[in-house]
Amino acid sequence: MISPRLARLVEHLAPAKVQALIVSGLPNVRYLTGFTGSNALLLVTSEEAVLFTDGRYKTQAAQEAQGVKVLVARGAVVRALMGSVKRRRLRRLAFERNRATFDLYRTLREGLAGCWLKPLSSLLEKLRAVKDAPEIAALRRSVELNSRVFEAALPRLRPGRRETDVAAEIEHLMRRKGGQGPAFDTIVAAGQRSALPHARPTHNLLRKNDLVLLDHGVILDGYASDMTRTVALGNLDSDRRRLYGAVLEAQLAAIAVVRAGIPARQVDQQARSVLEKHGLKESFVHSTGHGVGLEIHERPRLGRGERTRLQAGMVVTIEPGAYVEGLGGVRIEDMVLVTANGCEVLTRTPKDLRVL
Amino acid sequence: MISPRLARLVEHLAPAKVQALIVSGLPNVRYLTGFTGSNALLLVTSEEAVLFTDGRYKTQAAQEAQGVKVLVARGAVVRALMGSVKRRRLRRLAFERNRATFDLYRTLREGLAGCWLKPLSSLLEKLRAVKDAPEIAALRRSVELNSRVFEAALPRLRPGRRETDVAAEIEHLMRRKGGQGPAFDTIVAAGQRSALPHARPTHNLLRKNDLVLLDHGVILDGYASDMTRTVALGNLDSDRRRLYGAVLEAQLAAIAVVRAGIPARQVDQQARSVLEKHGLKESFVHSTGHGVGLEIHERPRLGRGERTRLQAGMVVTIEPGAYVEGLGGVRIEDMVLVTANGCEVLTRTPKDLRVL
Repeated sequence: MISPRLARLVEHLAPAKVQALIVSGLPNVRYLTGFTGSNALLLVTSEEAVLFTDGRYKTQAAQEAQGVKVLVARGAVVRALMGSVKRRRLRRLAFERNRATFDLYRTLREGLAGCWLKPLSSLLEKLRAVKDAPEIAALRRSVELNSRVFEAALPRLRPGRRETDVAAEIEHLMRRKGGQGPAFDTIVAAGQRSALPHARPTHNLLRKNDLVLLDHGVILDGYASDMTRTVALGNLDSDRRRLYGAVLEAQLAAIAVVRAGIPARQVDQQARSVLEKHGLKESFVHSTGHGVGLEIHERPRLGRGERTRLQAGMVVTIEPGAYVEGLGGVRIEDMVLVTANGCEVLTRTPKDLRVL
Repeated sequence: MISPRLARLVEHLAPAKVQALIVSGLPNVRYLTGFTGSNALLLVTSEEAVLFTDGRYKTQAAQEAQGVKVLVARGAVVRALMGSVKRRRLRRLAFERNRATFDLYRTLREGLAGCWLKPLSSLLEKLRAVKDAPEIAALRRSVELNSRVFEAALPRLRPGRRETDVAAEIEHLMRRKGGQGPAFDTIVAAGQRSALPHARPTHNLLRKNDLVLLDHGVILDGYASDMTRTVALGNLDSDRRRLYGAVLEAQLAAIAVVRAGIPARQVDQQARSVLEKHGLKESFVHSTGHGVGLEIHERPRLGRGERTRLQAGMVVTIEPGAYVEGLGGVRIEDMVLVTANGCEVLTRTPKDLRVL
């Protein structure tokens, strides 16, 4: 009994003219089998899937990996896999072009003389871009937990505290509320530092009337969330209020165009054109968003030149920002679920400017 | 002016019959340049080193990367690198066999027609196994911070608390005391669960008279630490006291044989023979240790069959354990610095059984 995810994958083997796929990307192994260990290869044929791991994971693999055969290798897992390939007399094999190391490729090439080895580009990443029902449920839970963390962290934002203290507390709240940990390094950037789009928290102190940019996500049941809010520690001058208003307008405009069928770049273009109207074209230095799932950055990318069309079931961030040296930066980010006629905003945290 | 680390690397280019090395492993890029961004390639020739990254890291690369030329790519960094290779008319290039993806290899192969591309195995990992003075200083600080975290966490180990709560507090202490975060997922395993060598914290409650295994490490200034202690929440029966004593004896015996010149497997063999004497041969299911540095698992591996000889300046863990189903598990782990005549134990936390 092969799982629905494996069944969807297997449909691509015959058109690619291969008998089997060697899956080496660990998030892809997890997606297909549920196994979360740090050392694994998966061999998928049209009839079965075999998971290869090492002795440390014997118990865990038996518990986690459902519907696949588990083979615990005594030495290197790739040796065990090649043994299985030979016993099954498989001759035409695909491997993951973007996940396999050159080392793995060369080991397969040398150990499987006579086999045709075909590199496949991002096959699983494309399948994973469209989430199934259990994944959407898991992403909802992750987003909700992350929003609760944000609300619990807000009272701790006070002048005199260090960015690093706030970041540490946000990550502690994630764990205390049941998350596995942060999905990426939490960003807390106050005052001038909010103008650095990838600022890491420093020992700088939060000050009265600062803009504070908070970008954090949690992992829950393996699934990531991602949210950014920018708040004010007291009164903002009119320039920074206008900056906030422009970014919020861009974010809402981008969300408004999301629906199945449009090219991903169109969402990015929408955010960009609003910011351009406000004279902030040069201040928006990154893409508008990205897919989220088992990994924090997945397909599709919502950026310039991205022709991929959105499909119902994709879950993406919408996160335009504007960064002005000497003034500060604002980014506002939600996760949305693409639907046939539009999208559902999964992130329920309000977006009006919060003055603490 | 080329740095000492780059100079050491460059010495290996001519013997390998190449004009340049393409470094794609991010920890290796960091080791050679100081750059900590998430997207980079480094081209090293005997005269210079050029770091390629993208626009997000323009400011950061200029601040962090010392003694190398920084080139901010407009598109893919590999395209920018290939442009530089062509302008310099380089024809014989090495790349990292164990770090390059097949994708990177194929892109280089197609974009640099006429170039000889030579896969090199673990060249930088071998250099990095022997730490230089700034690295040893950084590792000392990381180990000391990790020990302070342990001492601060001990009073929080009480019957009725969940393993996950304790793990979350340990990781919060790391941040509060100035660390960048955990070097790996913190292990807190109580009672029967201590018998699982790679247990992840669960919602299980700590109970009176439990053995509790704590394995955690912090990252400070980029460098990892790693320590395990097993403590008792009250009185232990004589079987578990004997288990503790056997593992401690094995750990001390392994430390006693460490010195420059011996094969790494000899340290492992020493720990193993002590446990065998206590009838625990089958209960020690992993290797005795591993190198630690910018990454939590580095060379050398202290395990069966490992012929690598220890060198002065290597920093490794010594962490034998014994896991007995129905009774519990004990692991005791220190980090040690290999010296010409022996070793210095960097971890100062006491190892006598602590009864809380």
